[in-house]
Amino acid sequence: MANLKLFTLNGNHRLAHRIADEVGVPLSPASVKHFADGEIQIDLDVSVRGADVYVIQPVSDPVNENLMELLIMVDALRRASAHLINVVVPYYGYARADRKARAREPITAKLVANLLEMDGIDRFVAVDLHADQLQGFFDVPVDHLKAMVLFGRYFRSSFADDLKDVVVVAPDHSGTKHARALAEYLNAPIAIIDKRKEDTAAGVIGDVAGKHCIIIDDMIDTGLRIVESVAALKEAGARDICAAATHAVFSQGATERLRDLPLRNIVVTDTIALPEAKQLPNMHVVSVGPMIGQAIKLIAANKSIHPLFELD
Amino acid sequence: MANLKLFTLNGNHRLAHRIADEVGVPLSPASVKHFADGEIQIDLDVSVRGADVYVIQPVSDPVNENLMELLIMVDALRRASAHLINVVVPYYGYARADRKARAREPITAKLVANLLEMDGIDRFVAVDLHADQLQGFFDVPVDHLKAMVLFGRYFRSSFADDLKDVVVVAPDHSGTKHARALAEYLNAPIAIIDKRKEDTAAGVIGDVAGKHCIIIDDMIDTGLRIVESVAALKEAGARDICAAATHAVFSQGATERLRDLPLRNIVVTDTIALPEAKQLPNMHVVSVGPMIGQAIKLIAANKSIHPLFELD
Amino acid sequence: MANLKLFTLNGNHRLAHRIADEVGVPLSPASVKHFADGEIQIDLDVSVRGADVYVIQPVSDPVNENLMELLIMVDALRRASAHLINVVVPYYGYARADRKARAREPITAKLVANLLEMDGIDRFVAVDLHADQLQGFFDVPVDHLKAMVLFGRYFRSSFADDLKDVVVVAPDHSGTKHARALAEYLNAPIAIIDKRKEDTAAGVIGDVAGKHCIIIDDMIDTGLRIVESVAALKEAGARDICAAATHAVFSQGATERLRDLPLRNIVVTDTIALPEAKQLPNMHVVSVGPMIGQAIKLIAANKSIHPLFELD
Amino acid sequence: MANLKLFTLNGNHRLAHRIADEVGVPLSPASVKHFADGEIQIDLDVSVRGADVYVIQPVSDPVNENLMELLIMVDALRRASAHLINVVVPYYGYARADRKARAREPITAKLVANLLEMDGIDRFVAVDLHADQLQGFFDVPVDHLKAMVLFGRYFRSSFADDLKDVVVVAPDHSGTKHARALAEYLNAPIAIIDKRKEDTAAGVIGDVAGKHCIIIDDMIDTGLRIVESVAALKEAGARDICAAATHAVFSQGATERLRDLPLRNIVVTDTIALPEAKQLPNMHVVSVGPMIGQAIKLIAANKSIHPLFELD
Amino acid sequence: MANLKLFTLNGNHRLAHRIADEVGVPLSPASVKHFADGEIQIDLDVSVRGADVYVIQPVSDPVNENLMELLIMVDALRRASAHLINVVVPYYGYARADRKARAREPITAKLVANLLEMDGIDRFVAVDLHADQLQGFFDVPVDHLKAMVLFGRYFRSSFADDLKDVVVVAPDHSGTKHARALAEYLNAPIAIIDKRKEDTAAGVIGDVAGKHCIIIDDMIDTGLRIVESVAALKEAGARDICAAATHAVFSQGATERLRDLPLRNIVVTDTIALPEAKQLPNMHVVSVGPMIGQAIKLIAANKSIHPLFELD
Amino acid sequence: MANLKLFTLNGNHRLAHRIADEVGVPLSPASVKHFADGEIQIDLDVSVRGADVYVIQPVSDPVNENLMELLIMVDALRRASAHLINVVVPYYGYARADRKARAREPITAKLVANLLEMDGIDRFVAVDLHADQLQGFFDVPVDHLKAMVLFGRYFRSSFADDLKDVVVVAPDHSGTKHARALAEYLNAPIAIIDKRKEDTAAGVIGDVAGKHCIIIDDMIDTGLRIVESVAALKEAGARDICAAATHAVFSQGATERLRDLPLRNIVVTDTIALPEAKQLPNMHVVSVGPMIGQAIKLIAANKSIHPLFELD
Repeated sequence: MANLKLFTLNGNHRLAHRIADEVGVPLSPASVKHFADGEIQIDLDVSVRGADVYVIQPVSDPVNENLMELLIMVDALRRASAHLINVVVPYYGYARADRKARAREPITAKLVANLLEMDGIDRFVAVDLHADQLQGFFDVPVDHLKAMVLFGRYFRSSFADDLKDVVVVAPDHSGTKHARALAEYLNAPIAIIDKRKEDTAAGVIGDVAGKHCIIIDDMIDTGLRIVESVAALKEAGARDICAAATHAVFSQGATERLRDLPLRNIVVTDTIALPEAKQLPNMHVVSVGPMIGQAIKLIAANKSIHPLFELD
Repeated sequence: MANLKLFTLNGNHRLAHRIADEVGVPLSPASVKHFADGEIQIDLDVSVRGADVYVIQPVSDPVNENLMELLIMVDALRRASAHLINVVVPYYGYARADRKARAREPITAKLVANLLEMDGIDRFVAVDLHADQLQGFFDVPVDHLKAMVLFGRYFRSSFADDLKDVVVVAPDHSGTKHARALAEYLNAPIAIIDKRKEDTAAGVIGDVAGKHCIIIDDMIDTGLRIVESVAALKEAGARDICAAATHAVFSQGATERLRDLPLRNIVVTDTIALPEAKQLPNMHVVSVGPMIGQAIKLIAANKSIHPLFELD
Repeated sequence: MANLKLFTLNGNHRLAHRIADEVGVPLSPASVKHFADGEIQIDLDVSVRGADVYVIQPVSDPVNENLMELLIMVDALRRASAHLINVVVPYYGYARADRKARAREPITAKLVANLLEMDGIDRFVAVDLHADQLQGFFDVPVDHLKAMVLFGRYFRSSFADDLKDVVVVAPDHSGTKHARALAEYLNAPIAIIDKRKEDTAAGVIGDVAGKHCIIIDDMIDTGLRIVESVAALKEAGARDICAAATHAVFSQGATERLRDLPLRNIVVTDTIALPEAKQLPNMHVVSVGPMIGQAIKLIAANKSIHPLFELD
Repeated sequence: MANLKLFTLNGNHRLAHRIADEVGVPLSPASVKHFADGEIQIDLDVSVRGADVYVIQPVSDPVNENLMELLIMVDALRRASAHLINVVVPYYGYARADRKARAREPITAKLVANLLEMDGIDRFVAVDLHADQLQGFFDVPVDHLKAMVLFGRYFRSSFADDLKDVVVVAPDHSGTKHARALAEYLNAPIAIIDKRKEDTAAGVIGDVAGKHCIIIDDMIDTGLRIVESVAALKEAGARDICAAATHAVFSQGATERLRDLPLRNIVVTDTIALPEAKQLPNMHVVSVGPMIGQAIKLIAANKSIHPLFELD
Repeated sequence: MANLKLFTLNGNHRLAHRIADEVGVPLSPASVKHFADGEIQIDLDVSVRGADVYVIQPVSDPVNENLMELLIMVDALRRASAHLINVVVPYYGYARADRKARAREPITAKLVANLLEMDGIDRFVAVDLHADQLQGFFDVPVDHLKAMVLFGRYFRSSFADDLKDVVVVAPDHSGTKHARALAEYLNAPIAIIDKRKEDTAAGVIGDVAGKHCIIIDDMIDTGLRIVESVAALKEAGARDICAAATHAVFSQGATERLRDLPLRNIVVTDTIALPEAKQLPNMHVVSVGPMIGQAIKLIAANKSIHPLFELD
Repeated sequence: MANLKLFTLNGNHRLAHRIADEVGVPLSPASVKHFADGEIQIDLDVSVRGADVYVIQPVSDPVNENLMELLIMVDALRRASAHLINVVVPYYGYARADRKARAREPITAKLVANLLEMDGIDRFVAVDLHADQLQGFFDVPVDHLKAMVLFGRYFRSSFADDLKDVVVVAPDHSGTKHARALAEYLNAPIAIIDKRKEDTAAGVIGDVAGKHCIIIDDMIDTGLRIVESVAALKEAGARDICAAATHAVFSQGATERLRDLPLRNIVVTDTIALPEAKQLPNMHVVSVGPMIGQAIKLIAANKSIHPLFELD
């Protein structure tokens, strides 16, 4: 790994350091300036000629700034004769814009993939993509890391003696597959929050009365879906409720909304850098840093990454 | 539309004729020969210079033969100076291979999209893609037709007085969104078939006792999922059961399996040419021909196709 | 021009309306939403099938937001079957990042061109590119509009009787060609501001004593170059001084800096939307709207745009 | 060669094993399933990260199935981070569709090359391409192996004392160059079968009376050309006749036709897996396995492959 | 055809005018300058916005100059917003470099095709390509015009009463197909010049004693093959001999060589501009101008060009 | 560097040998033939499989021949399985055609970059590009070597005691940046030759009376600009005058023109091979060979090349 170089941009410095610690290679220095009119200037402070480079950058808030940093960085690396350009994108902004739901919509998630491939990336490393099909938006290799094993370990330990009373809950119809995966880890049944129309309260499909409910999703954005799910679960007699999600987007008052909810706890990862002000007392953050770091070591050594996702 | 030309390959001649009838333009002659060693030879019997061409070809059984016919046809059209090459693919074979579910899997659905784009298509017209994200596998415009309105009309008429007792059932977790869409048309609740492990019977999430159940899916392949769903629904007290799906793949004994089931009826479309031997007495086939034909007329006239999917 | 459609994004609504007025075609409706986490969502409210579309969007502050709006818009238009996608970019952000000045720098101006071409634009319409070579960053046709004729007309009228005492001043070495062009219009000599080292005051090459000096540049960014030029010109005995530039970037205290200078006036165009707070009493804004509008009409009619740049 | 991996698909398992024996590296395990509806699923059972991979697959009967296996395999290898993807295609189906002979024909041989290049192959290894120009259908390196040396060795040994009475015969006008090459090896004259119209018997150009005739071609497909050539040669007084060809396509009753001919023997290679039922008593099969195996070793070691084609 | 524009470069002005006469559209003005250091500068003197442009340029001696003129012209046309760029290349230089005959050879004929396609041509119009497979070197439509009908007409008239004594002769093995085509037109037998080693005289395969021999080839380059063929035919008792070829390359003393030969006549076309000094008294030039002109009219009108090649 | 291979084409054999001497690797043998009709044939006489290849070829007079040699060489190298193809182009012909200065001009400098990238180069090594923006015409890495340090060293030594009386002169407005760079090396002021109209004599902006003037440019083509500059400088009282430029194009009587000028000396480099007849007694040639050779060694060793440009 003499030739392996790690860089971080401004998306998530803390996570980048955790990854670097795990890899055992310090972050290479680069300066990223944002001028007053918004233009970004990047300077690589070390040579990358012939290097196997990994750039760590979640495309999280501010999404467009972070994406442009990444695109410009890849341009700089390619022109500076890097050998392999691997981009590590723990959170893929625009991932939900992955299809035309209405007439004349863009498919921005594909646009982002096209922009990166055109720019010359050699590999895309992601964590818990909103839809598995996003892998197919790329033609370069995608290493898709899955945080589910981290949640599995956490909840198995958290509910140690009580696992038989746990129900995993999908907060909407499209999340059932996700919920089913955690349920397999915990050997638990699932339930689904069912919402028919904009103006009616959601119901619960499945039995949750007297149960420990774990609402699992790939991301918490505004938190509105959690609010609604909690209401439905309480109405249906749930004993207590946890909310878990890989990506803590937390926009538009999500923190306030979640603070007021009767949640046992909220479990998220650090794919997105959550500012102090958005953190809550009952929040538990599981770091994806070690997993990403191990993945980078395996990738650089041409070894399979799948052992990382096995629950012991 | 003087310059509009329709061609069919061997995938589904009957559907192609229905489409041509609706468009009001006869199918242009082309000969497609399969030699003894499997090579395909295509001859266009009319000039296509400057024409706005639509090629109708589901990528159904035999999938690879039909796909190669389509790829070769596009090559011939491009070299013969066609102006616009629109491919109409009512059934997209390999659509389920849309992600890496295991290590080192191909994403064949993306490969097929890449092959067609590389070959020079200008537009892809599809019906009920297995996942909406498949639209993003293409960078050319995709016109995604939806047969749900046909099922909606059929069942509204079929259960006219009894709509209040209908439940729409998703045969697995990933089909809930699909089921929710039909449920909206019918103003009905939904239920979900939940299967935890390979060796246990499936359960039902949601209430189906005494109800008319409509199992809705995008395709019926081996029929095993229907068999299991019917068992679970019966166990849960369903009054009677319909099975509906856009694409009648019907492979590996599906017909025999479905013949033995206590189904009120089976509703499919003609995106795939179902041979006589695979048809059943309680099967109802709704043609997508008129919808595709109208879509072609709208596309050729540069008009929006969305009115086609509105339930009156 | 029945099929010509104009869209504006958020870069410069006022200019877009001026352009639309000149073209005689109203702006088509589209909604552009920015979510709390920074993601942009664009909805086209009218069909663009088969249309010859012009999207007006300067890539000005906030540069990355405006660029992403443009990229996403082009994706939407392409997928919505627009016939021709022309992007009108009155100000090209990142234009100064057009070469590697130091080791390992990106060439972001080329990156932006690549992103747009990959996205599927058919034509790029620009105003006063920072370097003429930027045209070559594109392989699609570039229509490069030049505002110099607007300045020529303005100053000929402004200095009507006194033209013989005018000197056109390039504020640095790379701007001499630009200055020479305006000097030709005005039949005037030129002078050049010469700055040798970071810590010495700039000098003037050429004779400006007792003259009306017009400092001409393609853009005013921080205004520091103007400050330094004015000092040098005053030191060299200039009678009075005007500052003229196409693009009013005005970042990082430019407004304050320019307010304090003894300038006869400041002449800029409206390629960039200058907020009220950044405007100055001695500022004169020449609109490029009519020129762009006429260019669009000529382009759409397949006519040469060069007559637009001839000084009568 | 620690990192060299060999895979075979279903085209020709026996040849693949011969190649692997020569290379001294076992075939890596992969499963290739064909579902009832024709879809192919490929699973790589070992990691290929960073490997120099060779996939062995003639595009022979069933041509489209074999081609799709190859395309899907390449997609899987690319996504699984293989370092170099070399495809070894001993028989190139569709090679005869290499030009537009009639109006509006496809050029399927180019299409196949385009499909493979788009898919990401790094090298194409072929044996006796139908036309040398097919090399130019690719832009990646093509290693074109030539079996002529194998035929040269065989016939020099076979006619050891009688070489002076051998005539090499081209079965049609386009095969003369091929015949000339073998004639050079054997130091023999050539003759050409000349056929003017569909309904007249073929004649012989050149002197064959009393000679050992070797009809040489790149492939034997239906065998009709051999039948006609034998008749013409017999009519012209040939002493005895051998037929030799690299690719034993043997379609549409070729076996039956050849069984009835008065041929001294039929010499072919094993580029195509010939089923037992199509083999004949007077058939001699020369294996290209050792030559391909040696070629792979040379390629992997960055050495020239041309020594392989020199007749000692 | 209001929008059809014809341009010629320096390859063959006379032919270009013949083509323009046939099309009925004058050549559009453009200036092509060659500077002292070899750089070429092209100026289009009329607007080509939205035009259907045809550029006439054989890639003949000086091959590289002519090719660069063509490439630069296409760049200029694309940037000047031409709608369709059709290149008409009556002689395709480098056509013989269409395969790797030896190790490490380039395939320059493919390179030329790649250069033109990358440059943005929409159609390639050629006359008698050296190998039919060259069509497949392009992915854009190729209109391949065939001069054989012109030779057919000429010799049918020339040998009117004596056609039964005509033999068509291929000057080497690879030309037999070509010879067969003319023979079909004339209902004549063929013969082939057979040359085994560098140092032996060529022989004749086929019967030519007492016959009118027409040596037919796609091009006459050095004329050495004709010299050798004539010697062999004379030796074999030919009555008299004509030499015919589409492309009169005539390099390296060809004219002198041919002047000394006992040829009845030499028939060529004007795809290449033959300078006065290279013309011979017994030379007959058939113009391809009318055929190309008619082809352009048919192409521009979206009509099939195949009727042009039918012998009445 | 076991695998590093150097090739030269016909552009500048002497420089290639100097480079090879510095690298310490002999030039690999290749034959480059120009046929009578202008076609070029290249044969590589050694295997390049897996090699890191550097091809040395200025695109100088004859520009098109030299460019085609380079393009064909790259095609040969790619097909012959070279690992990395680096092209070293000491003089970039067509560099001045880098923008559309008039309507409908090509941008040939971009075309050349596109041709090379399409052909498959991995790196472009250049010396003193006419405009820095040309780097952005490429997307592969560009190593831009700068000869200014060579001129700096030469003149510092040449004017050792008299440096304080040196003025660096830009011969036109666009060359000021270049002049400023040399002036920094020499700690000297600059002046600019100012030419307003075609028919008036040029003037000098800046003070040159009694000074040693060094006219610096990137190239001397016809020498007309030098002639005019010398006249203006003499008129303005210059003590004596040197002319320096990286690229000695010397076309159209440049040598004669310069011979007659009262120049102290003319300093150029050997990027272009200057024939004996074009050399002058007062000409001093600084070789870029050592600099290029060192650059190749650094590039091949994955080290930064920037130390090469630092003046000690």
